[in-house]
Amino acid sequence: MLLIKLGGGLDLNWEGFAADIKSVQTTEPVIVVHGASATRDRIAEQLGIPIKTVISPSNITSVYTDQEAMDVFLMAYAGLVNKKLVAKLQGCGINAVGLCGLDGALWQAEAKKDLIVKENGRNKLLRNNLSGRVTEVNTSLILLLLREKYLPVICPPALGAGGEALNTDNDLAAAVMAEKLGIHRMVSLFEAPGLLADPNDESSLISCLSPETLEIQMERVEGRMKKKVMGALRALRSGVQTIYWGDGRINNPILSALEGQGTVIQ
Amino acid sequence: MLLIKLGGGLDLNWEGFAADIKSVQTTEPVIVVHGASATRDRIAEQLGIPIKTVISPSNITSVYTDQEAMDVFLMAYAGLVNKKLVAKLQGCGINAVGLCGLDGALWQAEAKKDLIVKENGRNKLLRNNLSGRVTEVNTSLILLLLREKYLPVICPPALGAGGEALNTDNDLAAAVMAEKLGIHRMVSLFEAPGLLADPNDESSLISCLSPETLEIQMERVEGRMKKKVMGALRALRSGVQTIYWGDGRINNPILSALEGQGTVIQ
Repeated sequence: MLLIKLGGGLDLNWEGFAADIKSVQTTEPVIVVHGASATRDRIAEQLGIPIKTVISPSNITSVYTDQEAMDVFLMAYAGLVNKKLVAKLQGCGINAVGLCGLDGALWQAEAKKDLIVKENGRNKLLRNNLSGRVTEVNTSLILLLLREKYLPVICPPALGAGGEALNTDNDLAAAVMAEKLGIHRMVSLFEAPGLLADPNDESSLISCLSPETLEIQMERVEGRMKKKVMGALRALRSGVQTIYWGDGRINNPILSALEGQGTVIQ
Repeated sequence: MLLIKLGGGLDLNWEGFAADIKSVQTTEPVIVVHGASATRDRIAEQLGIPIKTVISPSNITSVYTDQEAMDVFLMAYAGLVNKKLVAKLQGCGINAVGLCGLDGALWQAEAKKDLIVKENGRNKLLRNNLSGRVTEVNTSLILLLLREKYLPVICPPALGAGGEALNTDNDLAAAVMAEKLGIHRMVSLFEAPGLLADPNDESSLISCLSPETLEIQMERVEGRMKKKVMGALRALRSGVQTIYWGDGRINNPILSALEGQGTVIQ
Protein backbone atom coordinates (compact mmCIF):
# COMPACT_ATOMS: atom_id res chain seq x y z
CA MET A 1 0.00 0.00 0.00
CA LEU A 2 1.39 3.39 -1.02
CA LEU A 3 0.51 6.67 0.67
CA ILE A 4 1.02 9.68 -1.58
CA LYS A 5 0.94 13.20 -0.24
CA LEU A 6 0.35 16.00 -2.72
CA GLY A 7 1.25 19.51 -1.60
CA GLY A 8 -1.05 22.51 -1.68
CA GLY A 9 0.88 24.59 -4.25
CA LEU A 10 -0.63 25.97 -7.43
CA ASP A 11 2.14 24.74 -9.77
CA LEU A 12 1.72 21.02 -9.18
CA ASN A 13 1.10 18.86 -12.24
CA TRP A 14 -2.27 17.22 -11.50
CA GLU A 15 -2.44 15.71 -14.98
CA GLY A 16 0.88 13.91 -14.50
CA PHE A 17 -0.11 13.00 -10.94
CA ALA A 18 -3.31 11.33 -12.17
CA ALA A 19 -1.49 9.45 -14.94
CA ASP A 20 1.06 8.11 -12.43
CA ILE A 21 -1.64 7.08 -9.94
CA LYS A 22 -3.20 5.05 -12.72
CA SER A 23 0.00 3.10 -13.34
CA VAL A 24 0.91 2.66 -9.66
CA GLN A 25 -2.63 1.42 -8.90
CA THR A 26 -2.09 -1.57 -11.19
CA THR A 27 0.42 -3.02 -8.72
CA GLU A 28 -0.72 -1.81 -5.28
CA PRO A 29 -3.50 0.08 -3.49
CA VAL A 30 -2.96 3.84 -3.23
CA ILE A 31 -4.17 6.45 -0.75
CA VAL A 32 -3.84 10.17 -1.48
CA VAL A 33 -3.55 12.95 1.10
CA HIS A 34 -3.47 16.50 -0.23
CA GLY A 35 -3.02 20.06 0.89
CA ALA A 36 -4.60 23.28 -0.38
CA SER A 37 -2.66 26.02 1.36
CA ALA A 38 -2.11 28.23 -1.71
CA THR A 39 -5.82 28.04 -2.63
CA ARG A 40 -6.77 28.72 0.99
CA ASP A 41 -4.53 31.79 1.02
CA ARG A 42 -6.00 33.03 -2.27
CA ILE A 43 -9.64 32.62 -1.13
CA ALA A 44 -8.85 34.27 2.20
CA GLU A 45 -7.31 37.21 0.39
CA GLN A 46 -10.28 37.51 -2.00
CA LEU A 47 -12.64 37.46 0.99
CA GLY A 48 -10.51 39.99 2.85
CA ILE A 49 -9.84 37.56 5.70
CA PRO A 50 -6.18 37.68 6.74
CA ILE A 51 -4.36 34.38 7.40
CA LYS A 52 -3.08 34.65 10.97
CA THR A 53 0.36 33.04 10.92
CA VAL A 54 1.93 32.53 14.33
CA ILE A 55 5.34 31.31 15.50
CA SER A 56 5.73 28.93 18.44
CA PRO A 57 8.43 29.42 21.10
CA SER A 58 10.33 26.59 19.33
CA ASN A 59 10.15 28.53 16.03
CA ILE A 60 7.52 26.37 14.29
CA THR A 61 5.31 28.48 12.01
CA SER A 62 1.62 27.60 12.01
CA VAL A 63 -1.77 29.16 11.35
CA TYR A 64 -4.14 30.37 14.06
CA THR A 65 -7.56 29.09 13.06
CA ASP A 66 -10.65 30.88 14.33
CA GLN A 67 -14.16 30.07 13.03
CA GLU A 68 -13.82 32.48 10.11
CA ALA A 69 -10.50 30.92 9.12
CA MET A 70 -12.01 27.43 9.45
CA ASP A 71 -14.80 28.40 7.04
CA VAL A 72 -12.22 29.44 4.46
CA PHE A 73 -10.27 26.25 5.23
CA LEU A 74 -13.33 24.09 4.48
CA MET A 75 -14.05 25.99 1.26
CA ALA A 76 -10.49 25.51 0.01
CA TYR A 77 -9.55 22.03 1.25
CA ALA A 78 -12.76 19.98 1.36
CA GLY A 79 -14.50 22.08 -1.29
CA LEU A 80 -12.46 23.46 -4.13
CA VAL A 81 -9.23 21.44 -4.11
CA ASN A 82 -10.51 18.05 -2.93
CA LYS A 83 -13.35 18.02 -5.45
CA LYS A 84 -11.37 19.40 -8.38
CA LEU A 85 -8.72 16.74 -7.75
CA VAL A 86 -11.43 14.05 -7.56
CA ALA A 87 -12.91 15.34 -10.85
CA LYS A 88 -9.47 15.31 -12.49
CA LEU A 89 -8.88 11.72 -11.33
CA GLN A 90 -12.39 10.62 -12.38
CA GLY A 91 -11.74 12.18 -15.79
CA CYS A 92 -8.66 9.92 -16.07
CA GLY A 93 -10.72 6.83 -15.26
CA ILE A 94 -9.69 6.58 -11.60
CA ASN A 95 -12.60 5.99 -9.21
CA ALA A 96 -11.60 8.60 -6.62
CA VAL A 97 -13.64 9.33 -3.49
CA GLY A 98 -12.84 12.60 -1.75
CA LEU A 99 -13.07 12.69 2.02
CA CYS A 100 -11.95 15.07 4.72
CA GLY A 101 -10.98 14.05 8.22
CA LEU A 102 -14.53 14.74 9.44
CA ASP A 103 -16.12 12.15 7.15
CA GLY A 104 -16.72 8.91 8.97
CA ALA A 105 -14.54 10.36 11.78
CA LEU A 106 -11.62 9.53 9.50
CA TRP A 107 -9.08 11.69 11.34
CA GLN A 108 -9.81 12.09 15.05
CA ALA A 109 -7.82 14.81 16.73
CA GLU A 110 -7.08 16.18 20.17
CA ALA A 111 -7.81 19.89 20.20
CA LYS A 112 -5.05 22.35 21.11
CA LYS A 113 -7.35 25.22 22.05
CA ASP A 114 -4.70 27.34 23.71
CA LEU A 115 -1.67 28.26 21.69
CA ILE A 116 1.49 29.85 23.06
CA VAL A 117 3.02 32.06 20.40
CA LYS A 118 5.95 34.41 20.12
CA GLU A 119 4.94 37.98 19.36
CA ASN A 120 7.46 40.82 19.34
CA GLY A 121 9.90 38.65 21.28
CA ARG A 122 7.39 37.79 24.01
CA ASN A 123 5.29 34.68 24.61
CA LYS A 124 1.54 35.25 24.36
CA LEU A 125 -1.48 32.96 24.90
CA LEU A 126 -4.02 32.67 22.06
CA ARG A 127 -7.33 31.00 22.96
CA ASN A 128 -10.06 29.25 20.95
CA ASN A 129 -7.71 27.92 18.32
CA LEU A 130 -9.51 25.41 16.10
CA SER A 131 -6.58 23.11 15.57
CA GLY A 132 -5.45 19.79 16.89
CA ARG A 133 -3.26 16.75 16.51
CA VAL A 134 -4.54 13.58 14.83
CA THR A 135 -4.42 10.65 17.27
CA GLU A 136 -6.85 8.12 15.77
CA VAL A 137 -7.73 7.09 12.24
CA ASN A 138 -10.84 5.25 11.03
CA THR A 139 -8.80 2.73 9.07
CA SER A 140 -11.85 0.54 8.44
CA LEU A 141 -13.42 3.20 6.19
CA ILE A 142 -10.21 3.49 4.15
CA LEU A 143 -9.87 -0.29 3.86
CA LEU A 144 -13.56 -0.59 2.91
CA LEU A 145 -13.05 1.83 0.01
CA LEU A 146 -9.77 0.23 -1.10
CA ARG A 147 -11.39 -3.23 -1.08
CA GLU A 148 -13.98 -1.93 -3.53
CA LYS A 149 -11.24 -0.39 -5.74
CA TYR A 150 -11.93 3.25 -4.84
CA LEU A 151 -9.05 5.68 -4.44
CA PRO A 152 -9.42 7.59 -1.15
CA VAL A 153 -8.43 11.26 -1.61
CA ILE A 154 -8.13 12.74 1.85
CA CYS A 155 -7.59 16.21 3.28
CA PRO A 156 -7.96 18.01 6.60
CA PRO A 157 -9.74 19.21 8.76
CA ALA A 158 -9.80 16.57 11.46
CA LEU A 159 -12.67 15.88 13.87
CA GLY A 160 -12.48 17.03 17.49
CA ALA A 161 -14.13 15.14 20.35
CA GLY A 162 -17.03 17.61 20.39
CA GLY A 163 -17.72 17.33 16.67
CA GLU A 164 -15.72 20.45 15.82
CA ALA A 165 -13.59 20.76 12.71
CA LEU A 166 -9.91 21.14 13.59
CA ASN A 167 -7.08 22.33 11.41
CA THR A 168 -4.28 19.80 11.64
CA ASP A 169 -0.80 19.35 10.33
CA ASN A 170 -1.07 17.31 7.16
CA ASP A 171 2.39 15.78 7.34
CA LEU A 172 1.88 14.56 10.89
CA ALA A 173 -1.63 13.30 10.04
CA ALA A 174 -0.23 11.36 7.08
CA ALA A 175 2.41 9.85 9.36
CA VAL A 176 -0.23 8.76 11.91
CA MET A 177 -2.33 7.29 9.10
CA ALA A 178 0.70 5.40 7.77
CA GLU A 179 1.29 3.95 11.22
CA LYS A 180 -2.33 2.86 11.76
CA LEU A 181 -2.47 1.27 8.30
CA GLY A 182 0.96 -0.37 8.55
CA ILE A 183 2.21 1.48 5.47
CA HIS A 184 5.92 1.12 4.67
CA ARG A 185 6.35 3.53 1.73
CA MET A 186 5.27 7.15 1.38
CA VAL A 187 5.68 9.67 -1.43
CA SER A 188 5.45 13.41 -0.80
CA LEU A 189 5.28 15.82 -3.74
CA PHE A 190 5.76 19.57 -3.57
CA GLU A 191 7.10 22.53 -5.55
CA ALA A 192 10.79 21.68 -5.35
CA PRO A 193 12.99 18.82 -6.59
CA GLY A 194 13.23 17.46 -3.04
CA LEU A 195 15.09 18.71 0.03
CA LEU A 196 17.54 21.43 -0.99
CA ALA A 197 20.80 22.26 0.76
CA ASP A 198 20.14 25.86 -0.28
CA PRO A 199 16.39 26.61 -0.48
CA ASN A 200 17.09 29.19 -3.21
CA ASP A 201 19.09 26.81 -5.42
CA GLU A 202 17.15 24.00 -7.05
CA SER A 203 20.37 22.31 -8.13
CA SER A 204 21.37 21.78 -4.48
CA LEU A 205 19.23 18.63 -4.10
CA ILE A 206 20.05 16.33 -1.21
CA SER A 207 19.44 12.88 -2.73
CA CYS A 208 19.67 10.63 0.32
CA LEU A 209 18.95 11.01 3.99
CA SER A 210 19.02 8.62 6.91
CA PRO A 211 16.90 9.17 10.03
CA GLU A 212 20.05 10.55 11.68
CA THR A 213 20.91 13.05 8.95
CA LEU A 214 17.20 14.02 8.81
CA GLU A 215 17.38 14.94 12.51
CA ILE A 216 20.24 17.28 11.67
CA GLN A 217 18.22 18.87 8.85
CA MET A 218 15.48 19.61 11.39
CA GLU A 219 17.70 22.30 12.91
CA ARG A 220 18.50 23.86 9.56
CA VAL A 221 15.29 23.98 7.51
CA GLU A 222 12.60 26.63 7.87
CA GLY A 223 8.92 27.27 7.23
CA ARG A 224 6.84 24.53 5.61
CA MET A 225 9.91 22.33 5.12
CA LYS A 226 10.31 22.08 8.90
CA LYS A 227 6.87 20.45 9.10
CA LYS A 228 7.74 18.03 6.32
CA VAL A 229 10.87 17.01 8.22
CA MET A 230 8.88 16.60 11.46
CA GLY A 231 6.27 14.54 9.62
CA ALA A 232 8.95 12.36 8.06
CA LEU A 233 10.64 11.76 11.42
CA ARG A 234 7.26 10.80 12.89
CA ALA A 235 6.58 8.47 9.94
CA LEU A 236 9.95 6.75 10.30
CA ARG A 237 9.29 6.21 14.02
CA SER A 238 5.92 4.67 13.06
CA GLY A 239 7.22 1.91 10.85
CA VAL A 240 7.52 3.68 7.50
CA GLN A 241 10.71 2.37 5.86
CA THR A 242 11.15 4.66 2.87
CA ILE A 243 9.93 8.20 2.21
CA TYR A 244 10.29 9.65 -1.27
CA TRP A 245 10.22 13.44 -1.55
CA GLY A 246 9.79 14.56 -5.11
CA ASP A 247 9.01 17.35 -7.51
CA GLY A 248 5.25 17.65 -8.05
CA ARG A 249 5.63 20.03 -10.98
CA ILE A 250 7.22 17.62 -13.47
CA ASN A 251 5.92 14.88 -15.76
CA ASN A 252 5.61 11.53 -13.96
CA PRO A 253 5.99 13.14 -10.54
CA ILE A 254 5.19 9.95 -8.60
CA LEU A 255 7.20 7.53 -10.76
CA SER A 256 10.20 9.89 -10.75
CA ALA A 257 10.10 10.17 -6.96
CA LEU A 258 9.86 6.37 -6.63
CA GLU A 259 12.88 6.06 -8.92
CA GLY A 260 14.84 8.17 -6.46
CA GLN A 261 15.08 11.35 -8.53
CA GLY A 262 14.16 13.47 -5.50
CA THR A 263 15.19 12.95 -1.88
CA VAL A 264 14.99 9.39 -0.56
CA ILE A 265 14.83 8.98 3.20
CA GLN A 266 15.43 5.49 4.57
CA MET B 1 -34.86 3.22 3.41
CA LEU B 2 -35.67 6.90 3.82
CA LEU B 3 -34.27 9.67 1.61
CA ILE B 4 -34.25 13.05 3.32
CA LYS B 5 -33.61 16.24 1.41
CA LEU B 6 -32.54 19.28 3.40
CA GLY B 7 -32.85 22.65 1.70
CA GLY B 8 -30.10 25.20 1.32
CA GLY B 9 -31.62 27.98 3.47
CA LEU B 10 -29.85 29.61 6.40
CA ASP B 11 -32.75 29.25 8.88
CA LEU B 12 -32.97 25.46 8.92
CA ASN B 13 -32.67 23.77 12.31
CA TRP B 14 -29.63 21.51 11.90
CA GLU B 15 -29.65 20.58 15.58
CA GLY B 16 -33.22 19.29 15.35
CA PHE B 17 -32.45 17.67 12.02
CA ALA B 18 -29.55 15.70 13.55
CA ALA B 19 -31.63 14.64 16.57
CA ASP B 20 -34.39 13.34 14.28
CA ILE B 21 -31.94 11.48 12.04
CA LYS B 22 -30.69 9.71 15.14
CA SER B 23 -34.15 8.45 16.04
CA VAL B 24 -35.18 7.56 12.46
CA GLN B 25 -31.91 5.63 11.97
CA THR B 26 -32.91 3.20 14.73
CA THR B 27 -35.65 1.80 12.48
CA GLU B 28 -34.39 2.22 8.93
CA PRO B 29 -31.35 3.30 6.88
CA VAL B 30 -31.27 7.00 5.98
CA ILE B 31 -29.67 8.92 3.12
CA VAL B 32 -29.38 12.72 3.21
CA VAL B 33 -29.24 15.03 0.20
CA HIS B 34 -28.71 18.71 0.92
CA GLY B 35 -28.58 22.07 -0.78
CA ALA B 36 -26.47 25.14 -0.05
CA SER B 37 -27.96 27.85 -2.25
CA ALA B 38 -28.08 30.59 0.39
CA THR B 39 -24.46 29.94 1.39
CA ARG B 40 -23.45 29.84 -2.28
CA ASP B 41 -25.15 33.21 -2.86
CA ARG B 42 -23.45 34.71 0.20
CA ILE B 43 -19.95 33.52 -0.80
CA ALA B 44 -20.50 34.70 -4.38
CA GLU B 45 -21.50 38.11 -3.10
CA GLN B 46 -18.51 38.30 -0.76
CA LEU B 47 -16.22 37.36 -3.65
CA GLY B 48 -17.91 39.86 -5.94
CA ILE B 49 -19.02 37.14 -8.35
CA PRO B 50 -22.62 37.70 -9.45
CA ILE B 51 -24.97 34.69 -9.57
CA LYS B 52 -26.25 34.56 -13.15
CA THR B 53 -29.90 33.57 -12.87
CA VAL B 54 -31.59 32.75 -16.17
CA ILE B 55 -35.18 31.93 -17.16
CA SER B 56 -35.99 29.19 -19.66
CA PRO B 57 -38.61 29.67 -22.39
CA SER B 58 -40.94 27.54 -20.21
CA ASN B 59 -40.37 29.93 -17.26
CA ILE B 60 -38.11 27.70 -15.17
CA THR B 61 -35.57 29.74 -13.23
CA SER B 62 -32.07 28.31 -13.04
CA VAL B 63 -28.47 29.39 -12.62
CA TYR B 64 -25.96 29.71 -15.46
CA THR B 65 -22.78 28.06 -14.22
CA ASP B 66 -19.46 29.07 -15.74
CA GLN B 67 -16.13 27.92 -14.27
CA GLU B 68 -16.00 30.81 -11.81
CA ALA B 69 -19.52 30.01 -10.60
CA MET B 70 -18.62 26.30 -10.32
CA ASP B 71 -15.67 27.19 -8.08
CA VAL B 72 -18.01 29.07 -5.74
CA PHE B 73 -20.46 26.16 -5.98
CA LEU B 74 -17.79 23.67 -4.84
CA MET B 75 -16.72 25.94 -1.98
CA ALA B 76 -20.30 26.27 -0.71
CA TYR B 77 -21.82 22.85 -1.37
CA ALA B 78 -19.00 20.30 -1.09
CA GLY B 79 -16.91 22.50 1.20
CA LEU B 80 -18.66 24.65 3.75
CA VAL B 81 -22.16 23.21 4.01
CA ASN B 82 -21.48 19.51 3.43
CA LYS B 83 -18.65 19.42 5.96
CA LYS B 84 -20.34 21.60 8.58
CA LEU B 85 -23.38 19.33 8.36
CA VAL B 86 -21.17 16.24 8.68
CA ALA B 87 -19.45 17.80 11.72
CA LYS B 88 -22.83 18.61 13.30
CA LEU B 89 -24.02 15.02 12.75
CA GLN B 90 -20.73 13.56 14.02
CA GLY B 91 -21.06 15.75 17.11
CA CYS B 92 -24.45 14.10 17.71
CA GLY B 93 -22.95 10.62 17.45
CA ILE B 94 -24.06 9.94 13.87
CA ASN B 95 -21.33 8.48 11.66
CA ALA B 96 -21.92 10.75 8.65
CA VAL B 97 -19.82 10.61 5.48
CA GLY B 98 -20.11 13.63 3.20
CA LEU B 99 -19.90 13.05 -0.53
CA CYS B 100 -20.65 15.10 -3.59
CA GLY B 101 -21.83 13.69 -6.88
CA LEU B 102 -18.23 13.57 -8.16
CA ASP B 103 -17.06 11.17 -5.45
CA GLY B 104 -17.04 7.61 -6.69
CA ALA B 105 -18.98 8.92 -9.74
CA LEU B 106 -21.97 8.97 -7.39
CA TRP B 107 -24.14 11.18 -9.61
CA GLN B 108 -23.40 10.84 -13.32
CA ALA B 109 -24.94 13.53 -15.45
CA GLU B 110 -25.49 14.40 -19.08
CA ALA B 111 -24.17 17.90 -19.72
CA LYS B 112 -26.48 20.58 -21.07
CA LYS B 113 -23.77 22.84 -22.44
CA ASP B 114 -26.06 25.06 -24.47
CA LEU B 115 -28.86 26.78 -22.66
CA ILE B 116 -31.74 28.63 -24.31
CA VAL B 117 -32.84 31.47 -22.07
CA LYS B 118 -35.34 34.29 -22.21
CA GLU B 119 -33.74 37.71 -22.04
CA ASN B 120 -35.75 40.89 -22.51
CA GLY B 121 -38.55 38.87 -24.11
CA ARG B 122 -36.27 37.15 -26.65
CA ASN B 123 -34.71 33.70 -26.69
CA LYS B 124 -30.92 33.67 -26.50
CA LEU B 125 -28.33 30.86 -26.60
CA LEU B 126 -25.83 30.63 -23.73
CA ARG B 127 -22.86 28.30 -24.29
CA ASN B 128 -20.41 26.49 -21.97
CA ASN B 129 -22.93 26.03 -19.19
CA LEU B 130 -21.52 23.67 -16.57
CA SER B 131 -24.77 21.99 -15.71
CA GLY B 132 -26.45 18.73 -16.46
CA ARG B 133 -29.12 16.20 -15.64
CA VAL B 134 -28.35 13.19 -13.43
CA THR B 135 -28.98 9.96 -15.34
CA GLU B 136 -26.99 7.36 -13.41
CA VAL B 137 -26.23 6.80 -9.73
CA ASN B 138 -23.47 4.69 -8.20
CA THR B 139 -25.86 2.90 -5.86
CA SER B 140 -23.20 0.36 -4.85
CA LEU B 141 -21.18 3.08 -3.06
CA ILE B 142 -24.27 4.21 -1.13
CA LEU B 143 -25.24 0.65 -0.22
CA LEU B 144 -21.63 -0.09 0.82
CA LEU B 145 -21.69 2.84 3.27
CA LEU B 146 -25.18 2.00 4.58
CA ARG B 147 -24.16 -1.63 5.16
CA GLU B 148 -21.35 -0.39 7.42
CA LYS B 149 -23.77 1.93 9.29
CA TYR B 150 -22.50 5.19 7.80
CA LEU B 151 -24.95 7.98 6.96
CA PRO B 152 -24.30 9.22 3.40
CA VAL B 153 -24.67 13.02 3.23
CA ILE B 154 -24.77 13.94 -0.44
CA CYS B 155 -24.74 17.17 -2.43
CA PRO B 156 -24.14 18.31 -6.01
CA PRO B 157 -22.21 18.82 -8.30
CA ALA B 158 -22.63 15.79 -10.52
CA LEU B 159 -19.95 14.24 -12.74
CA GLY B 160 -20.00 14.77 -16.51
CA ALA B 161 -18.73 12.19 -18.99
CA GLY B 162 -15.45 14.10 -19.41
CA GLY B 163 -14.77 14.34 -15.67
CA GLU B 164 -16.20 17.84 -15.40
CA ALA B 165 -18.21 19.02 -12.39
CA LEU B 166 -21.79 19.85 -13.38
CA ASN B 167 -24.36 21.84 -11.47
CA THR B 168 -27.54 19.80 -11.33
CA ASP B 169 -31.05 20.18 -10.00
CA ASN B 170 -31.05 18.65 -6.54
CA ASP B 171 -34.73 17.72 -6.50
CA LEU B 172 -34.46 15.86 -9.78
CA ALA B 173 -31.21 14.20 -8.71
CA ALA B 174 -32.84 13.04 -5.47
CA ALA B 175 -35.74 11.62 -7.50
CA VAL B 176 -33.36 9.70 -9.79
CA MET B 177 -31.50 8.41 -6.76
CA ALA B 178 -34.77 7.28 -5.16
CA GLU B 179 -35.62 5.40 -8.34
CA LYS B 180 -32.25 3.66 -8.63
CA LEU B 181 -32.33 2.65 -4.97
CA GLY B 182 -35.98 1.59 -4.97
CA ILE B 183 -36.86 4.10 -2.27
CA HIS B 184 -40.58 4.50 -1.48
CA ARG B 185 -40.56 7.40 1.01
CA MET B 186 -38.89 10.79 0.78
CA VAL B 187 -38.85 13.78 3.12
CA SER B 188 -38.02 17.28 1.87
CA LEU B 189 -37.41 20.09 4.36
CA PHE B 190 -37.26 23.79 3.58
CA GLU B 191 -38.06 27.22 5.00
CA ALA B 192 -41.86 26.96 4.90
CA PRO B 193 -44.47 24.75 6.58
CA GLY B 194 -44.98 22.88 3.28
CA LEU B 195 -46.64 23.88 0.02
CA LEU B 196 -48.59 27.10 0.55
CA ALA B 197 -51.71 28.16 -1.37
CA ASP B 198 -50.45 31.73 -0.93
CA PRO B 199 -46.63 31.87 -0.80
CA ASN B 200 -46.86 34.95 1.44
CA ASP B 201 -49.19 33.34 3.98
CA GLU B 202 -47.70 30.54 6.09
CA SER B 203 -51.15 29.62 7.40
CA SER B 204 -52.27 28.66 3.88
CA LEU B 205 -50.69 25.19 4.06
CA ILE B 206 -51.90 22.60 1.58
CA SER B 207 -51.85 19.40 3.65
CA CYS B 208 -52.51 16.75 1.03
CA LEU B 209 -51.78 16.37 -2.65
CA SER B 210 -52.28 13.57 -5.13
CA PRO B 211 -50.13 13.25 -8.27
CA GLU B 212 -53.02 14.81 -10.18
CA THR B 213 -53.42 17.84 -7.91
CA LEU B 214 -49.62 18.20 -7.88
CA GLU B 215 -49.68 18.50 -11.70
CA ILE B 216 -52.12 21.39 -11.30
CA GLN B 217 -49.82 23.07 -8.74
CA MET B 218 -47.04 22.92 -11.34
CA GLU B 219 -48.79 25.64 -13.32
CA ARG B 220 -49.28 27.85 -10.29
CA VAL B 221 -46.08 27.78 -8.23
CA GLU B 222 -42.98 29.85 -8.98
CA GLY B 223 -39.22 29.99 -8.39
CA ARG B 224 -37.63 27.25 -6.33
CA MET B 225 -41.00 25.70 -5.52
CA LYS B 226 -41.49 24.88 -9.21
CA LYS B 227 -38.37 22.72 -9.08
CA LYS B 228 -39.59 20.96 -5.95
CA VAL B 229 -42.88 20.16 -7.70
CA MET B 230 -41.01 18.90 -10.79
CA GLY B 231 -38.76 16.77 -8.60
CA ALA B 232 -41.75 15.35 -6.73
CA LEU B 233 -43.56 14.49 -9.98
CA ARG B 234 -40.40 12.75 -11.22
CA ALA B 235 -40.07 10.87 -7.92
CA LEU B 236 -43.70 9.70 -8.02
CA ARG B 237 -43.19 8.45 -11.59
CA SER B 238 -40.10 6.55 -10.34
CA GLY B 239 -41.83 4.45 -7.73
CA VAL B 240 -41.77 6.78 -4.71
CA GLN B 241 -45.10 6.31 -2.93
CA THR B 242 -45.12 9.11 -0.37
CA ILE B 243 -43.31 12.45 -0.28
CA TYR B 244 -43.39 14.50 2.91
CA TRP B 245 -42.68 18.22 2.54
CA GLY B 246 -42.04 19.83 5.88
CA ASP B 247 -40.77 22.81 7.78
CA GLY B 248 -37.01 22.57 8.31
CA ARG B 249 -36.96 25.45 10.80
CA ILE B 250 -38.90 23.78 13.64
CA ASN B 251 -38.03 21.28 16.37
CA ASN B 252 -38.30 17.69 15.16
CA PRO B 253 -38.44 18.73 11.52
CA ILE B 254 -38.23 15.18 10.14
CA LEU B 255 -40.57 13.52 12.64
CA SER B 256 -43.15 16.31 12.20
CA ALA B 257 -43.06 15.92 8.43
CA LEU B 258 -43.44 12.14 8.72
CA GLU B 259 -46.45 12.73 11.01
CA GLY B 260 -48.06 14.68 8.19
CA GLN B 261 -47.73 18.16 9.69
CA GLY B 262 -46.53 19.57 6.36
CA THR B 263 -47.67 18.63 2.87
CA VAL B 264 -48.08 14.92 2.18
CA ILE B 265 -48.03 13.85 -1.47
CA GLN B 266 -49.21 10.34 -2.24
